[in-house]
Amino acid sequence: MKYYLGVDLGGTNIKAGITDENGNILLKSSIRTDSEGNAKKIADQMVGLCQSLVKKSEISMDDVVSVGVGIPGTVDAETGMVIYCNNLDMDGAPIGAMMQEALQKPVHLANDASCAALGEFFCGSGKQYNSVILVTLGTGVGGGIILNGKLWEGLEGAGAEIGHMVLHAGGEPCSCGRRGCFEAYSSATALVNQTKAAMRKHPLSLLNAVADKSGKVSAKTAFDAMRKGDTVAKDVVENYLFYLSEGVANLINIFAPEAIILGGGVCNEGDTLLVPLKEQVVAKCYGGDLIHHADISIASLGNDAGLIGAAMLYKA
Amino acid sequence: MKYYLGVDLGGTNIKAGITDENGNILLKSSIRTDSEGNAKKIADQMVGLCQSLVKKSEISMDDVVSVGVGIPGTVDAETGMVIYCNNLDMDGAPIGAMMQEALQKPVHLANDASCAALGEFFCGSGKQYNSVILVTLGTGVGGGIILNGKLWEGLEGAGAEIGHMVLHAGGEPCSCGRRGCFEAYSSATALVNQTKAAMRKHPLSLLNAVADKSGKVSAKTAFDAMRKGDTVAKDVVENYLFYLSEGVANLINIFAPEAIILGGGVCNEGDTLLVPLKEQVVAKCYGGDLIHHADISIASLGNDAGLIGAAMLYKA
Repeated sequence: MKYYLGVDLGGTNIKAGITDENGNILLKSSIRTDSEGNAKKIADQMVGLCQSLVKKSEISMDDVVSVGVGIPGTVDAETGMVIYCNNLDMDGAPIGAMMQEALQKPVHLANDASCAALGEFFCGSGKQYNSVILVTLGTGVGGGIILNGKLWEGLEGAGAEIGHMVLHAGGEPCSCGRRGCFEAYSSATALVNQTKAAMRKHPLSLLNAVADKSGKVSAKTAFDAMRKGDTVAKDVVENYLFYLSEGVANLINIFAPEAIILGGGVCNEGDTLLVPLKEQVVAKCYGGDLIHHADISIASLGNDAGLIGAAMLYKA
Repeated sequence: MKYYLGVDLGGTNIKAGITDENGNILLKSSIRTDSEGNAKKIADQMVGLCQSLVKKSEISMDDVVSVGVGIPGTVDAETGMVIYCNNLDMDGAPIGAMMQEALQKPVHLANDASCAALGEFFCGSGKQYNSVILVTLGTGVGGGIILNGKLWEGLEGAGAEIGHMVLHAGGEPCSCGRRGCFEAYSSATALVNQTKAAMRKHPLSLLNAVADKSGKVSAKTAFDAMRKGDTVAKDVVENYLFYLSEGVANLINIFAPEAIILGGGVCNEGDTLLVPLKEQVVAKCYGGDLIHHADISIASLGNDAGLIGAAMLYKA
């Protein structure tokens, strides 16, 4: 049988897994990223993790057809080069070639959100579609674009930066240097900041009690306080939904994909997020009811999406 | 030799042309659109124009391989149905089948901005690229998306509505019912409105004299008054460039295409528009100087882009 290695490189952890040709995980493992290390060190870590994983498994390296790696940055898939990586010291590093030499297998690189999109596309919520856009609501807002079954990454892999689509020109500052990006309104980080601002402005709101009880302000705080009937929390959630629906409607107007899949921690809210979001998005899509717009659903693979998608890069 | 018919249906005129397989125009003609007519009437007009054009030419209908039609609305290319057309009464009409029966040739439909993009891609400013996004700055803001040499129109042809990407949530009202769309800031219509507002606010500005002299306020007024040294006009142009650069940078961050091509009347300003636009866009693109971003240029086929692209639909 044929097996595939998938690696999901993150700023904190490196996850890797062995999958079959359909993306089913045979075995997985993770280690802490040497985030202070250079490209060579990190490539060595990934190679080592792959080798130890195969050793622990029932298969041998001979059974592995190819290796896929999701990188938290901009990647040129053709050359296997990392072009730009915000969190790790690998700008311009030939990670593909380095790993290929060490493992003696074809190595495919892609952006980590693109890998997560592929994972959902082949094995998760995107299974029944041909064209899917994944929107991850986490520390930032990430995106993966699959059109007619193929990953769209753009020139030198710099595309799919949907978190840096401006929704409110001149608005909230974004980590990218621009103002008003989707990420500055719809990431989990942004929701936490919006919640904190409401807490400062309304010290008597239940938001404060809920945060105190859980020991911190999280993306869950506003939803929890809203469920307890707090009107300030309801406003926070509604404002969050307003911008999220603007961003999702933009993507539908631009791509008209078959599906938008939402990932990231905020999606743990399930229907509390999804039901009002769908309503608002439909009202904002061009052509309104005359056109069948994209289905909107929540990602189903959780943290495994990235490594599964990386393993599936061989057929993307 | 093989020839192709291209039809560009507009709310005011129907243009048609005979091209060779490379999009070179042999002969073209146009008539006024029966804009009050139903779908059958308009289809008959397009068929009649095609037939009379071939009669006037040196070729016969036997030399025509296929017919392409650009529709000012949402089109399902697979079924040849018009899904949604704002200006003409053809929602749900099987225009493809109607014309195919009358002309006894394969008929391909697409959105008119998609056709213009194809025209520029095969025969104009987009010739040297594989992935191009056309942005037309006219009555509205239209878009055509070509990725890896193929037109991307999305589910039921509803994609590429880039004019309805919101740039300023809750901002200027748009004809689509939303607020803050790209179209509401960057269309020629929007520029005229912005110019008129500045004229009202600054009755002594040169804008007024320039408009009086030409007999109307146009997309040219602010540029002309700026060239004469008027500071109010300069502010109007700078505000226009600010939003246009936001929209173009968004498209680059989302797609990372090889090129963005700008069309429509506003582009007659040439480098006065293009040079400062490029500067602002680069500063707004994710990854900044580390990434080679899309070339930005101005469309070269003018009003023929739509009919050439329609004729070229056979290979799109």
